[in-house]
Amino acid sequence: MTAQPTPIDPQQLYRSPAFAQGMVLPAGPTLYVGGQNGTDNTGALLDGLDAQVEQAMRNVLAVLAEAGAGPEHVAKLTIYLAPDVDPAEAFGATREIWGNHRTAVTVLAMAPARAGALVEMDAVAMIP
Amino acid sequence: MTAQPTPIDPQQLYRSPAFAQGMVLPAGPTLYVGGQNGTDNTGALLDGLDAQVEQAMRNVLAVLAEAGAGPEHVAKLTIYLAPDVDPAEAFGATREIWGNHRTAVTVLAMAPARAGALVEMDAVAMIP
Amino acid sequence: MTAQPTPIDPQQLYRSPAFAQGMVLPAGPTLYVGGQNGTDNTGALLDGLDAQVEQAMRNVLAVLAEAGAGPEHVAKLTIYLAPDVDPAEAFGATREIWGNHRTAVTVLAMAPARAGALVEMDAVAMIP
Repeated sequence: MTAQPTPIDPQQLYRSPAFAQGMVLPAGPTLYVGGQNGTDNTGALLDGLDAQVEQAMRNVLAVLAEAGAGPEHVAKLTIYLAPDVDPAEAFGATREIWGNHRTAVTVLAMAPARAGALVEMDAVAMIP
Repeated sequence: MTAQPTPIDPQQLYRSPAFAQGMVLPAGPTLYVGGQNGTDNTGALLDGLDAQVEQAMRNVLAVLAEAGAGPEHVAKLTIYLAPDVDPAEAFGATREIWGNHRTAVTVLAMAPARAGALVEMDAVAMIP
Repeated sequence: MTAQPTPIDPQQLYRSPAFAQGMVLPAGPTLYVGGQNGTDNTGALLDGLDAQVEQAMRNVLAVLAEAGAGPEHVAKLTIYLAPDVDPAEAFGATREIWGNHRTAVTVLAMAPARAGALVEMDAVAMIP
């Protein structure tokens, strides 16, 4: 059996169905996914929040897949949202794509440096 | 003797008593602590900056402890403060809880995505 | 031959000459470079964007060098720019110092918590 990331959820903290309070990655090679915007394969931004969030998530998954990994191998996801974006709406757009894989997350209200980008996501994962 | 994180402080950089310019984690399993706000065990935000900063720090320590680690095993602490928060005041609130453990830090002025949250902290640590 | 970080660039994503979409670090000790501002060895901020960006990058390289590493060992670079800074101008200032080493990056428009700081950079790298 391959080692897997292990969720860490202390009893004294709120337990979320959507994310883990911490994740332990077993020793081994580690994948760093660079910040992904909602861009297509020419580097052009898609229109609108939902389309950008979905595409950014698909881009994260594409980098994971290229390295032989999937969302179940992710230890940490950091999501940067433009200040006027509703986090609940942004999450809604990702649920079907990401699936039910709990991981440690940080969600911040902050513009990506790229003009017009409403979301940026980066990740750290193990290579299975 | 267990391997420990090693501070990296080049001579040509300012040397701080409070943080290290870099930290090396020995090979092994790694804990990613997800972004912690100043929330209690029902997920509700505490009132006021000092209470939130203290609680966010306690939450980080709770996740570390659940994985068998402590502040002395942390390689990197990232602290996000709402734009109008004075970093010196925020640090003051954490000193007693965190202790004298130097680690690499990034401190940014940026709202957590959660409404009302004045601080968010995440961390990377070794498992001893 | 020493193991090196490996760029991950899925075909369906835009391929950049400047950065990789992801990087895999081989198993082993990991260096976390704390957030570097454009400060000199007394901790004082330099004047102006170009000077700060160049110095912040030199400080990252100094921490890497102190741990026996260089830009070719970096898996992830996160660059925080004050909201009114042009990313293209900021990158221009770093190209000569950093060289042609592709790595995974996240670039965000966000003030460092330190008053007057226009840029902050942190990094994760392998120890060769």
